[in-house]
Amino acid sequence: MASSNNVPAILELIRELADYEHALDSVEATEAKLLETIAFAPSDSTSTTSSTPQTEPTSPSKPARCLILTNPPGTVAGIALYFYNYSTWRAKPGIYLEDLYVRQSERKNGYGKRLLVELAKEVVAMQGGRLDWVVLKWNEPSIKFYESIGAKKMSEWVGMRVDGEGLTKLATLLD
Amino acid sequence: MASSNNVPAILELIRELADYEHALDSVEATEAKLLETIAFAPSDSTSTTSSTPQTEPTSPSKPARCLILTNPPGTVAGIALYFYNYSTWRAKPGIYLEDLYVRQSERKNGYGKRLLVELAKEVVAMQGGRLDWVVLKWNEPSIKFYESIGAKKMSEWVGMRVDGEGLTKLATLLD
Repeated sequence: MASSNNVPAILELIRELADYEHALDSVEATEAKLLETIAFAPSDSTSTTSSTPQTEPTSPSKPARCLILTNPPGTVAGIALYFYNYSTWRAKPGIYLEDLYVRQSERKNGYGKRLLVELAKEVVAMQGGRLDWVVLKWNEPSIKFYESIGAKKMSEWVGMRVDGEGLTKLATLLD
Repeated sequence: MASSNNVPAILELIRELADYEHALDSVEATEAKLLETIAFAPSDSTSTTSSTPQTEPTSPSKPARCLILTNPPGTVAGIALYFYNYSTWRAKPGIYLEDLYVRQSERKNGYGKRLLVELAKEVVAMQGGRLDWVVLKWNEPSIKFYESIGAKKMSEWVGMRVDGEGLTKLATLLD
């Protein structure tokens, strides 16, 4: 579980991921904003274990948690940003993985798999129902990797989003 | 915001929605499980307002909230089950709408739109970034309705999921 000490490294990896997804321009995150919106562990605890008794509580304005994986020299090599989701039919909580990223220079060490395993452990420990995420359709190498560790494509669903000006418009639609 | 008094009606609507999506067999929710996993408002407050100062806090094991809409006789006509999500690039919280459902007999009254407007208001009030949900691709009438109120299709993404046995397998993959 990441601590606030890891924020500079987390921002670095977020920017590297956005660059990989051809969307570096879309990154509005800053160190200050990450500190405000991610529930961190105390700063002396930076292991990858997902048992989080002392971690700050999540809240509507601070819904995210972050797992980090450090390589032997102690540099942050990979991150998993996530929040808790819900399955209505099962009436069970679960985890939604918002972003998983392993530094280019740290690939092929199994770090991505280790982060996914930690998240699956947390879902099992909380008697949760599922681990969900989305992937860009053109990212075939990632899709193949995800399927190899047991993930299924949710091909029958499409995401819908309201953001930016659309959100303000919708909020005032009936005023 | 729904109170625990509304649980029987909420379960009824969840089952009606599952039936509409041809998946009634998948409903494992019971009144007891809903009570354990949804953060409710105090039982004297059942308005649709999304300002939720007295509502139970959400937590990893109780991540969901529920908005209800009652028709003039006072019957629950529609529900919105949701939780708080996170946009890493913006470092902002938001809302993920897990299920929106208006009783068949209560359609054409604008209840679905009213529930979406309430959620958009909550995202704006929390200075959040987006309101997200998914829809079945074959459900063209719903997609058209969502687009008419400002939602965009996230067609370049596909969902991935690990659940059931796959989850236990993934959790123990590196043991």
